This record gives sequence, structure tokens and C-alpha cells, in this order.
Amino acid sequence: MRKKQNVQEEPDDIYSIPAIADRAVSQPECVIPEAVVKRLPRYFRCLRGLLNNDVMKISSSELSDLTGVNAAQLRQDLKYFGGLGQRGYGYNVKKLYTSISEQLGVTKKYTAVLIGAGNLGRAIINSRLCEQRGVWIKAVFDGSPSVIGKEIGDRKVSDVAELRRFCRENKTDIAVLCIPADAKSELLGIIKDCGFKGVWNFSPCELDDCDAGAKVENICTGDSLSALLYRMCEDEREKE
Amino acid sequence: MRKKQNVQEEPDDIYSIPAIADRAVSQPECVIPEAVVKRLPRYFRCLRGLLNNDVMKISSSELSDLTGVNAAQLRQDLKYFGGLGQRGYGYNVKKLYTSISEQLGVTKKYTAVLIGAGNLGRAIINSRLCEQRGVWIKAVFDGSPSVIGKEIGDRKVSDVAELRRFCRENKTDIAVLCIPADAKSELLGIIKDCGFKGVWNFSPCELDDCDAGAKVENICTGDSLSALLYRMCEDEREKE
Repeated sequence: MRKKQNVQEEPDDIYSIPAIADRAVSQPECVIPEAVVKRLPRYFRCLRGLLNNDVMKISSSELSDLTGVNAAQLRQDLKYFGGLGQRGYGYNVKKLYTSISEQLGVTKKYTAVLIGAGNLGRAIINSRLCEQRGVWIKAVFDGSPSVIGKEIGDRKVSDVAELRRFCRENKTDIAVLCIPADAKSELLGIIKDCGFKGVWNFSPCELDDCDAGAKVENICTGDSLSALLYRMCEDEREKE
Repeated sequence: MRKKQNVQEEPDDIYSIPAIADRAVSQPECVIPEAVVKRLPRYFRCLRGLLNNDVMKISSSELSDLTGVNAAQLRQDLKYFGGLGQRGYGYNVKKLYTSISEQLGVTKKYTAVLIGAGNLGRAIINSRLCEQRGVWIKAVFDGSPSVIGKEIGDRKVSDVAELRRFCRENKTDIAVLCIPADAKSELLGIIKDCGFKGVWNFSPCELDDCDAGAKVENICTGDSLSALLYRMCEDEREKE
């Protein structure tokens, strides 16, 4: 039985929506502004949650409540996805989800390798973050003899020295980097050689597209903690 | 022996800089603009890396290269920290680090509890992200009987049912949430009762300050992957 959950939350059990959804969707006809692009991942999560709860239509004001994006802004944003809202009916959730999924590459079936099989790497493998976004982690690599050969999920950890060969023999779009800071310099050459299209970088050293020869998205958890601490301090300063 | 590492990277072995550094630093006299605040965590990491490499002074152009913030912007930003740069000398790294650390609450010695002892929780405990920012994780809680009583790092996992009592008896500033989406609704009441000043939220459901009765920083790893995938698709569309 499908478990009901709060529609704001990201469900785990829908992977095939883009494949099964009605694909007769109007595609965006113009360049989507960066500010709208930034909100797409949130719409994606929200719509996925709605579908998982069998909610097939939703008004802009309800979707506004769920996403935290104000209703006028939301209506403007969603116009880029084929004007799927109708007055008095609301949005067709499945069509909107399909259209946004396509923008976010969920239907591309990208493949990835995970490099760095520590706790964070394990957390990523064991979550469904990647699968939910259409990304399949094909293999896991690490440089540490104490980890190589062990299993993570159902994948055996390979020696990072095998990475170049693996990528020559297997189409691999993305590298997920969960490496310590001091492993960066020796890995960067290998990563460039592998010809990834994208690098999802969790390591504590930022990379840019040039460094990696690929689109890079850095996710610096420490900076997020610093931002929280700043806001807490600011609050205390205001109260003083 | 202290290991040398790339100055862009975040070293693990300096915790006490704010305490030992020269504290006679000019403090910011006015409100720091939000755009500058957003760059502070990056300056913080960079300056920490420099100190770890015994670099005691640095020019704005070198710091610009390291941080990726353009030199004119960087000079403007750092004026909020007491004009610590001198023409022909550069910035006093220790003073600048100390000043920015204070803004980021590193010297406040905030305390935290971690809620959710899964892989991600373990990754956070085993990293030094928190310690480096002056935050001490005092205790770990989880709701699952299979995890309660086990050790993470050197902390025994307690039953989340004990959280309210723990926070009454122990000053605790921050909750680090590494819980699954479906645990949110039952936990939210407890979290509000505990009176945290801040919530660092890794769970896949966003919270706002009202939800938690505290400053909230959401870190949605999935959105970061979606952003990467969008840029990869965009690149492919441009090449077509």
C-alpha cells in the first residue's frame, strides 16, 4: 500500500513518472530566466510529492503554499512550461511535473560514478536522491586499500586507479565527488581525462567548470552551517 | 608535523585560531549587506587555509584568486572588517580571520544535538565541519530501536523521546536534522519545545523559521543535483 505523506516532502517511490506521464506537453519556447531556473528544483520536488499522493490538479495558490513561492511569481514562472494552468481548474500536476522533469534532465538517464566511499558517499548511495532525478550511479571508487573491495549498497568499491579505464569502457556522464580536500589535486587530472559532462562536488574544496573540464555544482555544507551561525549571531545582536 | 595543503582547501587541524589570534581587531561598524554576508563563509574557509599554511599576509589579488571573488569586490567587502588591508602590505590574515570568525559566531561556542543517526548523520559527526565552526555536537538522538544505544564517533545514540529532557537539562543552541521526510511532522513539536536558536536541516523537507521556532538553514542536496542536471541539459541544448 502506498504510504501517504505530506505533499511538501519528497516521496521515494515514484521513479517512472516521466516515462508514464502524458508526454504531449507544450515545451518552453524561450530561454528560462536564471531566477526561474533556481526555483525549478523546488517545483520538481513539490510536484513529485503531489503525484505520490495522487493529487492530479492543484491551484496556483495551493502550489504557492506548498512551495513557498508567492502565487503571482509562481504563475509567471510556470508560464514557461506551456501555460498548463487553467482558470477555475488549476494546474495539471502530471503534465507540469513531466515538463519540469524534462528541463531538469530527469528523462536523460544520466549515469554517474561516485568517488569516495566514506560516510557521505554511503549516505548518497543509500538515499534515492540520484535515482529520483534519473541518475544511475553505476560504480563506486575509492583510493583507500581499507575500503577497496568492500560493498556499498550492492556495488563493490573499485580502486580509483581503475577510474580512467572504467570511463573509457562505460559511458559515464557525472562524477559525484565525496573526497577529502587533500585528494583533490591528484584526482583532478584523472577527472579531466574521464570527460564527464558534470561534476557534483561535495569535497571541501570548490571547483569551477575549468578545473574539472565539466559543469560543476559545488555543495559546501560548511558554508551552509556558517550562514546559519551568522543569522543566529545577528539575531542575538538585534536583541542586545 | 603539520601537513601542508592547498590553501584553497579547508584544513582540519586549526580549531583555536580565534582564541589565540590577536583580538585587537576593528569590528564592523555598520550593517553588512546581504551579498557580502553570503561571501563570508568562503572568505572564512580560505583564510583558515592560509593560516594553516602559516601564510600571515596576503594581497587582495592573491586572495581574489583563491576565493574567486574579483579583487575590487573583495576589497570593498573586506572594508566591513576594519580596513585591515594596507597598500604595499596586503591583509593581515590572522586579524581578518578573527574578525570574520566573530561575525560567523565561531567564538560563541554554540552547542548542538544531532537528530538522525543514519549515514548522513555519521558523516557529519565524523567530519570536523562543526568543530571548525566552533559548534560542539553534544549528543546524538534517533527514533529507531536498531540504532539507539549504538556509538557514533564517541557518542552513544539516545532515544529521541529523551530529547526534550536533555535540552531542559543542557543548554543546546542548535539542532542538526538528518531525519527522513516522514519523521518531520512528529518531530516538529519536540523541536519547537526544545527552544533551539538554530536548526540546520538536511532532511528532504524544507522548514522555515516559523515551523521550527528558530533560525533555519535548509540544505537540500537534491536541489543541487537538479541544478547540475539543468546546466548539463542546457549545455547539450546549446550544442544541438
